[in-house]
Amino acid sequence: MKIDVLSLFPEMFKPLEQSIIGKAIEKNILDFKVTDFRQFTKNKQNHVDDLVYGGGAGMLLMAQPIFDAVDHLSQENNGDKGHVILVDPAGEVFNNKVAQKLSSYQHLTFISGHYEGYDERIKTLVDQEISLGDYVLTGGELPTMVIIDATVRFLKGVLGNEDSAQDDSFQNGLLEEPQYTRPADFRGLKVPDVLMNGDHEKIRKWRLKQSLKKTYLRRPDLLKNRKFSQEESDMIEEIKDDIKLASASNKLL
Amino acid sequence: MKIDVLSLFPEMFKPLEQSIIGKAIEKNILDFKVTDFRQFTKNKQNHVDDLVYGGGAGMLLMAQPIFDAVDHLSQENNGDKGHVILVDPAGEVFNNKVAQKLSSYQHLTFISGHYEGYDERIKTLVDQEISLGDYVLTGGELPTMVIIDATVRFLKGVLGNEDSAQDDSFQNGLLEEPQYTRPADFRGLKVPDVLMNGDHEKIRKWRLKQSLKKTYLRRPDLLKNRKFSQEESDMIEEIKDDIKLASASNKLL
Repeated sequence: MKIDVLSLFPEMFKPLEQSIIGKAIEKNILDFKVTDFRQFTKNKQNHVDDLVYGGGAGMLLMAQPIFDAVDHLSQENNGDKGHVILVDPAGEVFNNKVAQKLSSYQHLTFISGHYEGYDERIKTLVDQEISLGDYVLTGGELPTMVIIDATVRFLKGVLGNEDSAQDDSFQNGLLEEPQYTRPADFRGLKVPDVLMNGDHEKIRKWRLKQSLKKTYLRRPDLLKNRKFSQEESDMIEEIKDDIKLASASNKLL
Repeated sequence: MKIDVLSLFPEMFKPLEQSIIGKAIEKNILDFKVTDFRQFTKNKQNHVDDLVYGGGAGMLLMAQPIFDAVDHLSQENNGDKGHVILVDPAGEVFNNKVAQKLSSYQHLTFISGHYEGYDERIKTLVDQEISLGDYVLTGGELPTMVIIDATVRFLKGVLGNEDSAQDDSFQNGLLEEPQYTRPADFRGLKVPDVLMNGDHEKIRKWRLKQSLKKTYLRRPDLLKNRKFSQEESDMIEEIKDDIKLASASNKLL
């Protein structure tokens, strides 16, 4: 996979090299390049932003440097500009499914700005607008890095263990169960007995139930469109009973 | 405000210095420190992670180095460990309201891991679990930076223009309207006339309607619990009529 990023601050992307992105590059799974689009400005001051038509606070990223930068990338790649992504609070909300879909493209190009906003005409270049969530950031660099990190995890051979990305939260539509490592007793806080007794079937059931319970209590929205196995449906009923009992006796779950 | 971060990769946080965080530090609005919690390990190999009880892929962050690091920060701050935040996919979903709330704390402490997961007992130290969204990342560093960036924007005096954070998408519950900067005609793409004629009332109305329309079409969920002024309600009716007309004549909006 090839990933191009257009940014005014290429050095902000350095942290990715310490992440799995660095490993993916080493393994030749990923070709990653950040291009400073300030080099494509045509004004003497090398400005990339200007005032908003109609008035208002802040500056907007101008269309010209971005158009010329995308043209340049396209020429570098035999006319392929890649699947162009703009990170914008009004875009499609990012999630693991979007990440998995993005990982299927041969070439992604991110437009990553650092200003109040964009000249609307830039969006004529864009194939997909993605929002990281309902919050506003100073620039597009951090969200671009987040999207790249989540996407590259899905490329074959990137994670050490082939199963890891599949085991993560959300991949089976549930939150992850509580997990423990040594020591068995830390400052009086103990690991649940079931995880220590080596009975794999009991452990599997305990984990599934804990995962269902956590999701049911914290993110019931994730369960709405999910299909359940018979075992899972039975567990959900048990969980509901547990909650009724607990609330009747005022106990915390 | 004071922000402490516990991380194994302090240098990953460098990009924040180029962001508004750097400006907030310069202006003495923010005291920002990243502490490498590997220095608190007690084993010879300086390991911070270990195998999962009950079996399974990946490694878990151990409780001991995190507990000792939080104790250390607490001692440094006269017994105040700060409001401790763990970034976790199972946490409360982050948004601008959460960011604004976080900006009201005197001291935030982020536990930012870089492994498959955490020993569950670490959560006994945690005041708030926050999720950036329904996706999985290699480590907690990028999401921690995103949360810090969105939060620090709300600190008084950080943004150049006091109004900026209030004007952004989501602050009034709506997505931002399309915006334009020079030139008026770029490669044949023109700025809407209304923005060029200097009639401030017309511009205000056009912007509000565009903002409502974008939100209605892309994120109707944002409108569900929002209170509307009479002007806004009237505009919503107009937008619905526009959409009916457009779909009847097969036109794109």
